[in-house]
Amino acid sequence: MRIRKIKGAADMLLEYKEHFIANPEVNKGKWKEVFGNDNPIYVEFGGGKGKFSTGMSTLNPNVNFIMVDMVPEVVLKAVEKAKNQKLLNFRLILVDINTIETVFEENEIDRIYLNFSDPWPKKRHYKRRLTYKSFLDKYELILKDQSWIHFKTDNRGLFQYSLNSFAENDMIMKNISLNLHEEELDFENVTTEYEEKFSKQGMPIYRVESKFRKK
Amino acid sequence: MRIRKIKGAADMLLEYKEHFIANPEVNKGKWKEVFGNDNPIYVEFGGGKGKFSTGMSTLNPNVNFIMVDMVPEVVLKAVEKAKNQKLLNFRLILVDINTIETVFEENEIDRIYLNFSDPWPKKRHYKRRLTYKSFLDKYELILKDQSWIHFKTDNRGLFQYSLNSFAENDMIMKNISLNLHEEELDFENVTTEYEEKFSKQGMPIYRVESKFRKK
Repeated sequence: MRIRKIKGAADMLLEYKEHFIANPEVNKGKWKEVFGNDNPIYVEFGGGKGKFSTGMSTLNPNVNFIMVDMVPEVVLKAVEKAKNQKLLNFRLILVDINTIETVFEENEIDRIYLNFSDPWPKKRHYKRRLTYKSFLDKYELILKDQSWIHFKTDNRGLFQYSLNSFAENDMIMKNISLNLHEEELDFENVTTEYEEKFSKQGMPIYRVESKFRKK
Repeated sequence: MRIRKIKGAADMLLEYKEHFIANPEVNKGKWKEVFGNDNPIYVEFGGGKGKFSTGMSTLNPNVNFIMVDMVPEVVLKAVEKAKNQKLLNFRLILVDINTIETVFEENEIDRIYLNFSDPWPKKRHYKRRLTYKSFLDKYELILKDQSWIHFKTDNRGLFQYSLNSFAENDMIMKNISLNLHEEELDFENVTTEYEEKFSKQGMPIYRVESKFRKK
């Protein structure tokens, strides 16, 4: 995605105090206190403009959503949406997922969403894909036992890589879909900006749920 | 596939004594004796005109191949190829896979190939798909421990169904490919008639290897 430079975007985020957490590390192990309830905590890695996480927050008031991203310019839209909709169960943090364990305690998270992650198509970049083993190890750490990772992408190469990575790491998989928008679903599929765009172009959307075996 | 009726095809098969085994049940547990050696035995279910099984037999003289099918008219081509090429390590049998345990003993088989199986696309026919649980149970019985099933198809629906069926049955998977002919392979991919046809039309070929956990 080409990012329009917004001067002072990082500073502008600070004005969204109710939805943007500037120093997420201080909440490690205490995210329940941030939300003020015991509801499950779902995290989206790479939320972009926030269509998915804010949509899920609206649809699921009894779940807390934390959207993680890196680019202030992009995520401004997300906190704007959250503010306009007065979402109490949505928070945004800016963190490099390589250091996600500085923000979440072991077993603190109930679900991870990986939506339309950067495919890093070049072979030499495979270690940057968010389903590479070093990332899976981090997810296993912060996820509660038997909690699921929900993965969606339009990118066939990334999907193939991810299925193999889950399989190699002996993870459990279910609900594998090679064309999500053709399926009869038993849940409401909240879409992302990418998903809308690619699906309208007639491209299949791939999806899988995976989890680690008992700790 | 539309099958051209060949009068007396079943009788014609009987002339290929060296490659067609008319009463396979009598060899249950004794297939090594049929081949006269201790080489591993690989079985293809639904071999059609035999391009794959005869090709594999040529390429792997130290493996024994048994091609299973149901339709005499179709498989005549297979035994013709085997005869012309004087293949010592190829046999054809006509068996309904629903009764495959009448032909193979427990742990008698070293690998199963499922190539371009009938997709049975209608939902109500899912029990006929060759990766439905009742078939997997039979494969587990006749396969040696830790032996692989190699599955290829051009049909996205069947591939999705099969991945989910393998996952539901807690099988191990590897080498999942969503576009086989685009991959750099570390083995020679012997193609089937269907595979040639669909691949030339630009359709992706799907592939996965799966096996059961330790008995």
